[in-house]
Amino acid sequence: MFSDTIAALATPPGIGAIGVIRLSGPEAVPIADQMLRGKSLAAAAGHTAHFGRLYTPEGRLLDETVLTVFRAPHSYTGEDIVEISCHGSPYILQEVLQCCLLLGARTAQPGEYTLRAFLNGKMDLSQAEAVADLIASQSEAAHAVAMKQLRGGFRKEIDQLREDLIHFASLVELELDFGEEDVEFADRADLKRLVENIRRYLHSLLASFALGNALKTGIQTVIAGRPNAGKSTLLNALLNEERAIVSDIAGTTRDTIEEVLNIRGVAFRLTDTAGIRAAQDQIEAIGVERTLQKIEQAAILLYVWDVSGGMTLAELHTELQQLWKPGLRLLVVCNKMDRNPLFLTEWVSRPDLPDIHPYLLRGDEATALAASAALLPHLTAIPVSAKNQMNVAYLINCLFETAIGEGIHTENTIVSNARHYDALRRADATLADVLEGLSTQRTGDLIALDIRSALRDLGEITGNIGTEDLLDSIFSKFCIGK
Amino acid sequence: MFSDTIAALATPPGIGAIGVIRLSGPEAVPIADQMLRGKSLAAAAGHTAHFGRLYTPEGRLLDETVLTVFRAPHSYTGEDIVEISCHGSPYILQEVLQCCLLLGARTAQPGEYTLRAFLNGKMDLSQAEAVADLIASQSEAAHAVAMKQLRGGFRKEIDQLREDLIHFASLVELELDFGEEDVEFADRADLKRLVENIRRYLHSLLASFALGNALKTGIQTVIAGRPNAGKSTLLNALLNEERAIVSDIAGTTRDTIEEVLNIRGVAFRLTDTAGIRAAQDQIEAIGVERTLQKIEQAAILLYVWDVSGGMTLAELHTELQQLWKPGLRLLVVCNKMDRNPLFLTEWVSRPDLPDIHPYLLRGDEATALAASAALLPHLTAIPVSAKNQMNVAYLINCLFETAIGEGIHTENTIVSNARHYDALRRADATLADVLEGLSTQRTGDLIALDIRSALRDLGEITGNIGTEDLLDSIFSKFCIGK
Repeated sequence: MFSDTIAALATPPGIGAIGVIRLSGPEAVPIADQMLRGKSLAAAAGHTAHFGRLYTPEGRLLDETVLTVFRAPHSYTGEDIVEISCHGSPYILQEVLQCCLLLGARTAQPGEYTLRAFLNGKMDLSQAEAVADLIASQSEAAHAVAMKQLRGGFRKEIDQLREDLIHFASLVELELDFGEEDVEFADRADLKRLVENIRRYLHSLLASFALGNALKTGIQTVIAGRPNAGKSTLLNALLNEERAIVSDIAGTTRDTIEEVLNIRGVAFRLTDTAGIRAAQDQIEAIGVERTLQKIEQAAILLYVWDVSGGMTLAELHTELQQLWKPGLRLLVVCNKMDRNPLFLTEWVSRPDLPDIHPYLLRGDEATALAASAALLPHLTAIPVSAKNQMNVAYLINCLFETAIGEGIHTENTIVSNARHYDALRRADATLADVLEGLSTQRTGDLIALDIRSALRDLGEITGNIGTEDLLDSIFSKFCIGK
Repeated sequence: MFSDTIAALATPPGIGAIGVIRLSGPEAVPIADQMLRGKSLAAAAGHTAHFGRLYTPEGRLLDETVLTVFRAPHSYTGEDIVEISCHGSPYILQEVLQCCLLLGARTAQPGEYTLRAFLNGKMDLSQAEAVADLIASQSEAAHAVAMKQLRGGFRKEIDQLREDLIHFASLVELELDFGEEDVEFADRADLKRLVENIRRYLHSLLASFALGNALKTGIQTVIAGRPNAGKSTLLNALLNEERAIVSDIAGTTRDTIEEVLNIRGVAFRLTDTAGIRAAQDQIEAIGVERTLQKIEQAAILLYVWDVSGGMTLAELHTELQQLWKPGLRLLVVCNKMDRNPLFLTEWVSRPDLPDIHPYLLRGDEATALAASAALLPHLTAIPVSAKNQMNVAYLINCLFETAIGEGIHTENTIVSNARHYDALRRADATLADVLEGLSTQRTGDLIALDIRSALRDLGEITGNIGTEDLLDSIFSKFCIGK
C-alpha cells in the first residue's frame, strides 16, 4: 500500500458537460473534505455519490460538484478513491486539480492508477496492459482482443503451465540434495512429455500473434501501381463503399497520411503510394525504393493494374516480382474493367451477381501469371471499376478474407502484445534447451536452471515475476489519469 | 415531466482514462439494466455507484463500467439518471451510446439536460444560462461571474421588484372594474416612488454590463503603431512577463489570431495589427481602415510609440486623433525608452523602484499632449523597453487598472448576459413610459398595460415568463451532454 495520494484529470481534456478529477490514496477523502468546507465524507460509505460545493483554501467557491467515494479495497486501485465530477470547464478542472495538489496530493504519473491496481493485487500485469489497449481500441476486433485479455486472457493456462513446471523443477532440484546417490525423483519421460505439450501450446500462442497484432494496431495495406492506374480513385471508392469509420491518421513514424478503412470491425490502414513510373525493367529506383519501404511493414499489397491498356501482363509480372517479399499477401486489382471488353462482358453477363466471383484470368493471361510460381499462391486478381464502384464491395470482401481468413474467433486465445510475444518466444527457446538437455542426459542442475529461466519468462507475462524497469516501461505508455 | 429518455456523451470527446455516458428519463434504469444482463439496478437507491459489465443486445461484452444512479427528483435534471463511467475509448463510448439508442433512448439535444432541469424546476433560466457560462469560463473573473449567477445571481432582487410591481398592477387593474366610480386603490405617489426605485436599480445593473461582458468574454485590446515601433516585441514581452495562461485563439469572426493574456484572473484578448505606415497626415487609408475596424470592437488601444526617434509628438497626436473613438481607453506605450536619454535617465535614477510610476511627459511634450483636450482623460503614457523587459510589469498593471479600475467586486451584482441586458433595457424603457403616464395623468388601463409589459420583460430573465423560441435559442448554445 502506498502512503501518498495521487490526483489527475481522468476525462479527456477539452470542454464538455462534465470533467472528472480522480483522487486515490489514504488522503483522498480528507483532501476532498478540506475543499468541501463544513461537509465531510469521512463517514461516507463506499460506492456512494454526494453533492458538494468545492472551495479553494482561500475560500473562493470553485464549483458545485458530485463526489463519488470508493472505499479500499473495493475500488479500481484498491485504495480509497474520490471521483470529483465537475462542470466540464478546463479552467475549473485545472483549479480543482491545483487545490488537490495544494492540499497534499501529488500529480499522478501516466498509468499510475492502474500500476497501483496491479501492485495492490486488483489485476495481473497482462490485464493492466489490456486496460491501455482497451482505451486505445478503435475497432471491434481490437476491442474484442483487449477485452478478452482484460477478462483474464490466457492467464489461467499460463498459470497451470507454470505450476506443472514448478513441480518438476522442485523434484529435479531435490535430486541435487541427494547428488551422491544418483536418484531420479522427476520422471524424465514425464518431464519430456510435459515440456513438449507446453511448447505445442506456446507455438499456437506465438502463431496467433501476427493476427493479434494486426487486429490491435490495424492491418497495414499498401496501394501501389503506375501513375493513373487509378490508385487514388480506388482509395476513395474503398472508403466510400464501406461508409464505415474513416479517418485521417497521421503516421507516427513517417510523414504520409493513412486512411483507415473499417471492415467488419477490423481496421485496415491504407497507405497510398506515389505512382511507379516504369516500363518493364526501367522502374525508377526512387519510386520503388519508397514503395518497398512501405511494403516492408505491410501485410497486404493492393496492386492496381490498369487493364484498359498500356501495361502488358509481362510488365505486370516483372513489377510484382520486384515488389513482392515473402509473407506479403498480394491482391491484383484489375482496374478500369469497364474499359476492357473482356472484363466488361463477364460483368454484364452476370447481372444476377452484385458481387461477381473472383475473375479468373483466362487463356494466355492466366498462363503468364501462373508462370510466376513464387507469386501465385499469394495472389488474387479482382476486376473492378473504381470510378463506377463496380465490384468494389467484392474487393472489400477479398481484402478481409485475405487478411483474416474465415473470420476472427475471439473465443480463441490471441496474443496481441509484443511484450508477451517476446516472453513466450524466450520461454519456448529455453524449453527447447530443456528438451535437448533431456535427450543428451544433461545433469539435473543444468536442466533445473533452464526450467527456472523458462518459468521466469512465463511469469513476466502476468507479472508474477517483474522488475521495476519492466513496470516503468509498461505504465509509462498509459495516459495520465488511468 | 418528460416521457422519453435521453442519452449523450457527457465528457469531452477524445481518449482519456474514463468517459461518461449520461442517461436521463423514466427509462434510464431499465435501459441500463438491459445492457447489464442479469444484474439489475431497479432496486438501487439514489446516489449509489455499481460495478457492471455492459453487453450489446447480441450479447457482445462491451466494457466493465461503474454506473452511478440518481433518483428523481434528486438529480441534475430532476429525473432518474444513470451515469455510465466507461473506459475512455471513443470506440467503446460510441458503442455504448449506440446500445442506449437501440434500447429506446434518444440522442439528447445540446443543453437538453439543463433544459429539463429548468422545466422540472431544478433551476431558473438565468441559472441554466450560468451553467453554459461556467463551462465556457476561461479565467477567474469569468468563472466568478458565472458562479455567482449559478448561485442565484440577482434573482431575488428581480423577484422582489416583480412582486411589488404585480401588487400595484393588480390594484390599478382593480380600479378598472370600478371604472365608473373614479376610485384609486393604487396610490399614484407610492407607485411613482416604486418605479423610480426600480429604475435606479435597473440602471446600476445595466451599468455593470460593460464590465460583466468584458469579464465573461475577455477584454478586447488592440495593439497599433507604426512599423518597427516594436508591436510584436511588446506582445511577446507582455505574454512572457506574465507567464500566465497564454493561448492562441482563432478569432470567430475574423481570420486574425488573438493572444490571450491573463492578468489577475481577467482575460485580455490582444490583437496585433499591421503597422500603420504613415507620416503626419499621409496615413495609408487601408492600414488605418483595418486597424479602425479592430478598434471598433475594442475596449483598449495600446498605441506603441517608438521614442527613439522618427515620429514627432505632433505626428503622434494626429495619429491618435484618427484612431481614437469615444469610449476607447488609450494607453500610449513609449517604447524603446532605453534608446532615449530622457526616459533612460528617469529609469536609471530610480533603481529602487522595479515598477516606476507612470512616466509623466515633461516640458514641451507634456504640453503638446495636453493640448489634445478630447484625448487627455482617456490617455496614459507609459515608457517601456519591450526588448529589455523594462517597465513591462508596470504596463501590465496599467492595463488591468485601465480596464477594471480598482478591482472586481464579484460580491456586487454584475450582469454579464446580453439577453439579460436586453430584457433589463426593455423593462427600463417601459417603466419610463409608466412614469410619463403617471405624470401626464394617463388612464389606469394604459398604465396597467405598461406595468404588465415591464413584468414580462423582467420575468424573461429568470424564465417566469418564457416562450419556446426563447428556450430554443438559449439551450441550442449548450454543448451536447449538458
